[in-house]
Amino acid sequence: GYSQFPRSRQGLAGAPEWASLKAMLPDLRGKRVLDLGSGFGAFCRFAVEAGAAEVVGVDLSEKMIASAKERGPGLPIRYEQADLETYVPQAGAYDVVFSSLAVHYLSDFDAFARKVSDGLVPGGAFVFSMEHPIFAARGEPEWLEADGKRVFALSDYAREGERVTNWVVEGIVKYHRKMSTMVTALLVAGFVIDAMDEWAPSQDDLKAMPGLADEIIRPMLLLMAAHRPDQEH
Amino acid sequence: GYSQFPRSRQGLAGAPEWASLKAMLPDLRGKRVLDLGSGFGAFCRFAVEAGAAEVVGVDLSEKMIASAKERGPGLPIRYEQADLETYVPQAGAYDVVFSSLAVHYLSDFDAFARKVSDGLVPGGAFVFSMEHPIFAARGEPEWLEADGKRVFALSDYAREGERVTNWVVEGIVKYHRKMSTMVTALLVAGFVIDAMDEWAPSQDDLKAMPGLADEIIRPMLLLMAAHRPDQEH
Repeated sequence: GYSQFPRSRQGLAGAPEWASLKAMLPDLRGKRVLDLGSGFGAFCRFAVEAGAAEVVGVDLSEKMIASAKERGPGLPIRYEQADLETYVPQAGAYDVVFSSLAVHYLSDFDAFARKVSDGLVPGGAFVFSMEHPIFAARGEPEWLEADGKRVFALSDYAREGERVTNWVVEGIVKYHRKMSTMVTALLVAGFVIDAMDEWAPSQDDLKAMPGLADEIIRPMLLLMAAHRPDQEH
Repeated sequence: GYSQFPRSRQGLAGAPEWASLKAMLPDLRGKRVLDLGSGFGAFCRFAVEAGAAEVVGVDLSEKMIASAKERGPGLPIRYEQADLETYVPQAGAYDVVFSSLAVHYLSDFDAFARKVSDGLVPGGAFVFSMEHPIFAARGEPEWLEADGKRVFALSDYAREGERVTNWVVEGIVKYHRKMSTMVTALLVAGFVIDAMDEWAPSQDDLKAMPGLADEIIRPMLLLMAAHRPDQEH
C-alpha cells in the first residue's frame, strides 16, 4: 500500500520534489497553516519545526491520521478527518494552505479553489503539488517506442474528468484537468499566480535515484504557488 | 509554403483559435498596439478595425511585410522589418503587445518577456499564442497506437532548447520550453498572469474542421494573457 513508498517511509526526504515545493513556501514562523490531504503528517510536522503558530491537517483516512499522530506524539498539530470534496476551511483563518498530491482526487477543483481562497487571510498563500495533467492523461501502456526511442503515450489530453487507474489499488478514481483549467480555476477564485514548476530531476537527483530518468520524458508532478491579493481588484 | 495555410489565406477567420485569443484581448479603442511577428498583417488590420490609435507590426520577413502592406493599402499601420530576437520595443510606448505563433522561434524567451514588459505602459497587456510545449516535444513519429487507440508520442518534455523540425520547410529551428518555464519567465519579467488556454476544438469546430480531432489527443496551441501591474510590488 501507500505506506511502503519512500515518501511515506522517509517523509519529506523521500519525496524528490520536496526541495522545490519547500522553496515556494513563505516563511512559516508564527503562521496559521492548513494542510489539506495531510496523509502521514510529514508536512504538518515540518510546519511545527518551521515555527508555525497553528497547524491543522485534514485527511479522509482515519488510518493515516492515526499513523500521523503516532509519528508526532505531543506535537501541537490538530488533525481532522474529512473529505476534501466537502470540507470547508474556516473563513480567513489561515495564512498558508498547503496540499500535496491530493487535488487530482477532487471532482470539483473550481469549488475547492474558492474554498481555499475563502479560508486564507488577504495576502495568504496556497502552495500545492498534484499529479501532472500530462501524467494523468497517459495511454495504456504508458510507454512506447518511436524510432527506437522511449516515448510517453499521451491520450486524450483535452478530455477532462474521471480517469480510473489500477495503480497500487484497483479502481482508484482521479480527475484529469488540463494545466490551463487549473490555472483558470485559481484565477477565477481570485488568486494571483506566483510560481509553477513542472518538476523534473536535476543531475544530482538522477544520480541518487536513477529511476527518475522517466521524469525527463514526461512530467509526473506539477507544483504551484498562488496567493490571495491584499486588496480585491 | 506558409502562404497556403488557411490561416494565411483567410486571415484570422482561418485560425480556429482566434476566437479564444480575441477574447483575451482588452478593448483596443484608442490603444497603441504592437504586433510581434505580424506575418501577413491580419492582426494589425484587425487592430485598426477595432479602433486602435496606433498599430506597429514587426516581422523578420520582408516578403511577408510586403504582402501585409498589399493586403491593407492605405491603412494606418507601420511595419518594421526586424528579428524579434534582438528587437527592442520603445520603452513604455504600448498599451497592448500581441504575438501570434512566434515566440517558439526565440532562443531567449526570458529576455523577450523583459523587453515586452519594458515596452508596455503600467497596466498594459501582453497577449500571445505559441506552439504548445507538448506539441513541441513530440517524438518521431508523432502518432502511435496504444492498445488500439491513437496516442501522441511525447519525447523528452523536460529537455529544453533547440528542436529542429522538417515541417513545410526543412531544418526549421524552434525552441522548446516547458509550460512552467514560460510562466516563470513572465513572472520574473514582472507580469501578472491573467489567462491561459491550451486550445482545443469545440464540438462546432470539429464539425466544421474534422481534421482538428487530433487536437483532443494533444494540444498544439497555447494561448496566454498577462499584464504589467499598475504599480511595482
